[in-house]
Amino acid sequence: MTALEAAAALRARKISSVELTVQCLAQIEKLNPTLNAFITVTANTALAEARKADEELAQGMDRGPLHGIPIAHKDLLCTNGVRTTSGSKVFSSYIPNFDAAVVERWREAGAVMLGKTGLHEHAYGITSTNPHFGAIRNPWNPECIPGGSSGGSAVAVATGMALLATGSDTGGSIRVPASYCGIAGIKATFGRVSKFGALPLGFTLDHMGPLGRTVRDVAVALQAMAGYDKRDSTTVDRPVPDYLPPVGEISLKGVKIGMPLNFFYEKLDPQVDNAVHFMAYTAQDLGAELVDVRVPDGRQLNTVAQVTLLAEAASVHEPYIRKQRASYGEDVRTLIDMGRVLPATDYLQAQRLRKRMLGVYQNILKSVDCLLVPSTAIFAPKIGQTEIEIAGAMEDTRLASTKLVRGFNALGLPVVALPAGFSNAGLPVGCQLVGRAWGEQSLLRIAAALEDRAPHYKRTWQG
Amino acid sequence: MTALEAAAALRARKISSVELTVQCLAQIEKLNPTLNAFITVTANTALAEARKADEELAQGMDRGPLHGIPIAHKDLLCTNGVRTTSGSKVFSSYIPNFDAAVVERWREAGAVMLGKTGLHEHAYGITSTNPHFGAIRNPWNPECIPGGSSGGSAVAVATGMALLATGSDTGGSIRVPASYCGIAGIKATFGRVSKFGALPLGFTLDHMGPLGRTVRDVAVALQAMAGYDKRDSTTVDRPVPDYLPPVGEISLKGVKIGMPLNFFYEKLDPQVDNAVHFMAYTAQDLGAELVDVRVPDGRQLNTVAQVTLLAEAASVHEPYIRKQRASYGEDVRTLIDMGRVLPATDYLQAQRLRKRMLGVYQNILKSVDCLLVPSTAIFAPKIGQTEIEIAGAMEDTRLASTKLVRGFNALGLPVVALPAGFSNAGLPVGCQLVGRAWGEQSLLRIAAALEDRAPHYKRTWQG
Repeated sequence: MTALEAAAALRARKISSVELTVQCLAQIEKLNPTLNAFITVTANTALAEARKADEELAQGMDRGPLHGIPIAHKDLLCTNGVRTTSGSKVFSSYIPNFDAAVVERWREAGAVMLGKTGLHEHAYGITSTNPHFGAIRNPWNPECIPGGSSGGSAVAVATGMALLATGSDTGGSIRVPASYCGIAGIKATFGRVSKFGALPLGFTLDHMGPLGRTVRDVAVALQAMAGYDKRDSTTVDRPVPDYLPPVGEISLKGVKIGMPLNFFYEKLDPQVDNAVHFMAYTAQDLGAELVDVRVPDGRQLNTVAQVTLLAEAASVHEPYIRKQRASYGEDVRTLIDMGRVLPATDYLQAQRLRKRMLGVYQNILKSVDCLLVPSTAIFAPKIGQTEIEIAGAMEDTRLASTKLVRGFNALGLPVVALPAGFSNAGLPVGCQLVGRAWGEQSLLRIAAALEDRAPHYKRTWQG
Repeated sequence: MTALEAAAALRARKISSVELTVQCLAQIEKLNPTLNAFITVTANTALAEARKADEELAQGMDRGPLHGIPIAHKDLLCTNGVRTTSGSKVFSSYIPNFDAAVVERWREAGAVMLGKTGLHEHAYGITSTNPHFGAIRNPWNPECIPGGSSGGSAVAVATGMALLATGSDTGGSIRVPASYCGIAGIKATFGRVSKFGALPLGFTLDHMGPLGRTVRDVAVALQAMAGYDKRDSTTVDRPVPDYLPPVGEISLKGVKIGMPLNFFYEKLDPQVDNAVHFMAYTAQDLGAELVDVRVPDGRQLNTVAQVTLLAEAASVHEPYIRKQRASYGEDVRTLIDMGRVLPATDYLQAQRLRKRMLGVYQNILKSVDCLLVPSTAIFAPKIGQTEIEIAGAMEDTRLASTKLVRGFNALGLPVVALPAGFSNAGLPVGCQLVGRAWGEQSLLRIAAALEDRAPHYKRTWQG
């Protein structure tokens, strides 16, 4: 069941929030020992919250589409009274006494929290196994990674352990696991969703956002978390439009979709290429015009994002790593050490380039409504696999997983991630729709149109 | 004559712009060989511009208070067809084909450009002598420095070589020379004046602004340069109020002036202390309330400004110093080299602290309308003097010159610099009124009230 289907069933009294919650908890009990999606499960408080939601709904108090819906939070979002590990040893026994902004907002929207989902160490680790909490497994093939860093959230949503989940995206951490797990997600415009109470990583790159089974689920989930928050000075005080795309077939007449001639469709698994092109032709069927565009060299933008992240993450972790060096996994420690010796002039040069690149992309997005590109160059690699063959050449799996996503963190533009299809081996892959700043509404509408027309591409995980 | 007196005389046909310009050029011819205020004098084009201004005024076309007024530009502001050296060897033969925004705006306001004034090398040198263009001398005592880096502009205005001049202020470069030369100036809120066409130094610290003999002159000069400019993305699109303070005695009833209990009145020349306190008592006489305030440790804020400047200036100069290392003076070369090895984490930590400090100052400025503090801890030191005795202890002259000004560059708050009095030896010193962001109008009004009541403190240089 999608979150919106569950919301309708709740209002039709066909199911209760307690029943939904019990189903999710049963699924967690059944699958989590293998898939390792959750670090912490809060079964008791979840049931209490579900009972409260049922009572409120029975009394005619309706908090909106998330009311009574069982959800999960990525374990770097602070949760009042519930351990928040950031997937790390440093915070392994940290119990915040406050909620992160998105946790608070979903709570006010009546969502029922099932627990906290696993992630790469500090959302930063590059190995596929978290050194403190173990590997999270891909439900479509447990030998494969689910993608990161919001892997636990994506697995939980893909398998019905939760109906929605929060994620964070600093270099693709919502979109990569959405791609590898066959679900949807959104990284809204930088400043659209409050980062208050999220343990920071790259503070000019970090975006909070939802993961859901469908684009419409993601739309209502974003709706319940978007908006200005004075506790996060990077949020912007502007109205939040209605994100939910209309029901029924959506025409894409008049919509121009940019198809990059360079970078984004190079060095791809041919099956990924086909799947995303099929999405483009689906858009064309719906009336959209496909427009060839040329983008700046993506490697340059990726370097900008990487230099920015190295410096910012090092500056965030400096006070901790000084005191607790041994508590860090080797890969994260290495990244932080690299960041600590990065010259300020490199960082500033990256910011200069970043601003210029944004100008170039803004220009491209004057002539098209969005870009359609793959989320990942490959399907989910195996746990521990460091290299993969792409069209005859070997490539680093992490590069192949992140090269198409991380540039948009540096640009701060909104990106909807949605399923695009499956490999012959049955692994999912996703695509990205990249839009203009603050253009989430239009982007979600286009994504919903595609998803409606290509339902066979979003095959549901059946276990 | 002040610029406003000249503007009135022009309109009363008591003098022409050509006559004003000839007087200034005569003064330049007489004084510049000694004082070295100008790097380039554009006598011919100045006279042509003056003739044009006279014709326009005769035809009833009035461009406002700067129309026909002879002015000078700091030689780091690009001037179309006129050499712009930045006080450096690197740009010693650079002739821009466009005007900086403030040059363009003053030109449109009818100002007559006399030439380009001297500065520290790249507005960055710390020695009192520019290695490429020699020392600029203080008109009140030619053995003393005029302060920098806008020294040439301050000397030109103090001596009537020009009626107004532009300056730039990255770490006090408008306010220090205003203090040492006995004139006024303003560093408006960051984002109020366009930096387009100014050779950058510390791009988050740089402020363009005017120097003038009186506060009212500075007000009209700022009026003619303030406002949004799409070519400088840091400028803000908000209305520019009328800056000119009213004529006649201004009451300060209801005005609360913050007097810092710590840092700003410590380690001062006692005569500076007395002079600025006398300004405070003058404000009290005019009805203002003096309020004791406690400020954050100024050394910390100065370190924030310094780290920020080291990194940003190094990033600006990196491409030039790689190719033309020998063209840099030793002090600037050293500063750039220091900036090149500064870790990005230090820069980011400084930005974090900077933001926190701004919050603290914003809170202080909720309870008072402005702060009144000295501009410099000392009177102008001798050229070449590196140490000075302050109340029995030796201090670095550069530290004593800049420690009270540079923090406000990091905060971006508006600061009016105005004369506060003279030492027994006849050297001037200035004070700063520090206000709320975008509060220039109120700040200039308070400054004008003080200046009107304490005219003996702004004794005019008589040569």
